[in-house]
Amino acid sequence: MASSRNPEIRKDRILNRSVIFSPARARRPSDFKSKSPANPNPNSSKECPFCIGHEHECAPEIFRLPKDTSDWKVRVIENLYPALKRDSKIIENEEENPKYDSNVVVTGFGFHDVVIESPVHSIHLSDLSPSEIGDVLIAYKQRIQQLHLHQSIQYVQVFKNHGASAGASMSHSHSQIMGLPIVPPTVSSRIISMKEYFHETGKCGLCQVRSEELLIDESTHFFSVVPFAASFAFEIWIIPRDHSTHFHALDNEKAVDLGHLLKLMLLKLSRQLNDPPFNFMFHTSPKDMEASQFPYMHWFLQIAPQLSGVGGFEIGTGCYINPVFPEDAAMVLREVNVV
Amino acid sequence: MASSRNPEIRKDRILNRSVIFSPARARRPSDFKSKSPANPNPNSSKECPFCIGHEHECAPEIFRLPKDTSDWKVRVIENLYPALKRDSKIIENEEENPKYDSNVVVTGFGFHDVVIESPVHSIHLSDLSPSEIGDVLIAYKQRIQQLHLHQSIQYVQVFKNHGASAGASMSHSHSQIMGLPIVPPTVSSRIISMKEYFHETGKCGLCQVRSEELLIDESTHFFSVVPFAASFAFEIWIIPRDHSTHFHALDNEKAVDLGHLLKLMLLKLSRQLNDPPFNFMFHTSPKDMEASQFPYMHWFLQIAPQLSGVGGFEIGTGCYINPVFPEDAAMVLREVNVV
Ligand SMILES: Nc1ncnc2c1ncn2[C@@H]1O[C@H](COP(=O)(O)OP(=O)(O)O[C@H]2O[C@H](CO)[C@@H](O)[C@H](O)[C@H]2O)[C@@H](O)[C@H]1O
Ligand SMILES: Nc1ncnc2c1ncn2[C@@H]1O[C@H](COP(=O)(O)OP(=O)(O)O[C@H]2O[C@H](CO)[C@@H](O)[C@H](O)[C@H]2O)[C@@H](O)[C@H]1O
Repeated sequence: MASSRNPEIRKDRILNRSVIFSPARARRPSDFKSKSPANPNPNSSKECPFCIGHEHECAPEIFRLPKDTSDWKVRVIENLYPALKRDSKIIENEEENPKYDSNVVVTGFGFHDVVIESPVHSIHLSDLSPSEIGDVLIAYKQRIQQLHLHQSIQYVQVFKNHGASAGASMSHSHSQIMGLPIVPPTVSSRIISMKEYFHETGKCGLCQVRSEELLIDESTHFFSVVPFAASFAFEIWIIPRDHSTHFHALDNEKAVDLGHLLKLMLLKLSRQLNDPPFNFMFHTSPKDMEASQFPYMHWFLQIAPQLSGVGGFEIGTGCYINPVFPEDAAMVLREVNVV
Repeated sequence: MASSRNPEIRKDRILNRSVIFSPARARRPSDFKSKSPANPNPNSSKECPFCIGHEHECAPEIFRLPKDTSDWKVRVIENLYPALKRDSKIIENEEENPKYDSNVVVTGFGFHDVVIESPVHSIHLSDLSPSEIGDVLIAYKQRIQQLHLHQSIQYVQVFKNHGASAGASMSHSHSQIMGLPIVPPTVSSRIISMKEYFHETGKCGLCQVRSEELLIDESTHFFSVVPFAASFAFEIWIIPRDHSTHFHALDNEKAVDLGHLLKLMLLKLSRQLNDPPFNFMFHTSPKDMEASQFPYMHWFLQIAPQLSGVGGFEIGTGCYINPVFPEDAAMVLREVNVV
């Protein structure tokens, strides 16, 4: 690995982020193996409301897969401590909060759900088979479609926290779905930068990120890379080969295929980095964006291992510092053997 | 505290951020007292290179205050593991990296320094007197002025990490200064949003944030508030009363006055939240911005307690979730007694 390389500042044209690559930082007293595994206590199933048989300890269920069976594989439920409320009215600020006239306030209408990915406490997402992971992806898709029926919902964020350092407060394998009454900041800025790229080059920025040096692997419908300006060491993007606007257009066959590549990537990270804490985030398009009108939009899945926290520099500047060059991370990940 | 209040989404017109306020989130299994104090082991001074007498274990010194004495109070030194290198040449990408033509690459030229805030291992910044804190602020100022002499430096970020969960790898009280060859993303976006506000209202957005509900305290030259759309629970901004463009215009008298208010805020946070991990960040203006040309720029100091990590939602959307309404946090902080 080129760890004696000089630092570089790279700019990502998709997420519009600047990242400092600095191998020297890796030599600070700390290393890339996470100190403790992400799930130190995976067996406390007696106390866990997400386990099969404990359904009554959860907030109400929205649906389960398969339908109408006590022997479920995936459950989508309401979050018991929701960040947004499904029963709030949408009121913009003006008359409500006249003293904040210079600030924008929207009441916190929205949806906050939890997806329980397995009935069994000790099972991680990467332990499931490709087609079982496909079921989880189909659950996301179905819930997104339901949320889109609400007029005020503009964007749906699907994400996963694995391990305490990635923010997880529950160890049972799960992910979350939030239906938002706004288009969030990263999405607006992604739209602007992808549009700019498209107008400059006539191409979709995401169709272009594939390069031999950065490629990790590929499946029938997807490929995975370490992005050119990864914010996180060993960050991975899984990208549909077909230029596709919305995640929820995923069909069953593609869901299983994505399940296969996602499983492989999670196993590689787990093997290489000792079950690191990680987040994943689906970056899709706002509800009302038609592919025909927005030819530059292309959804993808970002997987972000959390090997080191951030500090005041990142909060202050919005620039991340990554000690591992993407080319080096891609080479390592290509070679990790998970069989 | 209005913890049964409905959630709200607020937009900050200064940092251009959207934040979800959701008291319900506070009821998740966890609470606002940080579980472990930020500095669990403040006495391992035998091993600490930042302690007086261990100067030879550090990267080279840039200067000390007072000058030319072995009995120093503040040292500014090079970072031994710098994110940017002071001896790199600035080269833009085109010919160097033709394969990345669609991406922007800058070589990692820049400066990365450490400010040791006290010779004594067990002393925290808030233990110093207002005039001693003033000395630390003057050290920042002097170093910024030196860095501005380098033609390629466009912005200087001063920040502090206190406690492991705020990213600190060293427990001896210190802060960091980075001289950057770019204007970082948060700064560009702050410039745009403050300009917009100014053009809409004819006023500086930061001069306007002071309100009775959000005010915590004030000194001769500064006031402190919880910002209207705080990303972090109990976040504090310290703002110069005079509309002032650059932090490094601070004179000695104002430095002591700011030292006084900063000490008070840190003591209040420490008392209320049990020595929480925190970051602080100086948000100033790029080197080349003249006050006369940029009437909307106004520097300030952001203090961000780190009571809970972030997760996939924040990474994915750029929206933070804050369980404490700023009005409630300001009321609590006004009332904390630190005498
Ligand atoms: N019995 C029950 N029924 C239904 N739901 C239940 C439940 N018990 C707990 N829950 C919910 O289950 C969710 C579990 O989520 P995670 O473990 O992924 O992280 P959490 O949302 O707590 O916070 C992390 O993710 C968020 C969003 O990124 C960050 O704001 C935060 O800082 C980070 O710690 C929680 O949101 C909780 O409210
Ligand atoms: N003998 C010595 N002489 C000189 N310098 C020495 C030294 N020994 C150590 N150092 C330097 O001292 C600094 C101490 O800094 P902090 O404890 O504030 O956090 P750090 O920079 O490690 O990382 C935190 O802050 C950065 C920036 O926000 C984040 O990228 C990161 O994730 C987070 O953990 C380190 O940068 C280290 O390189």
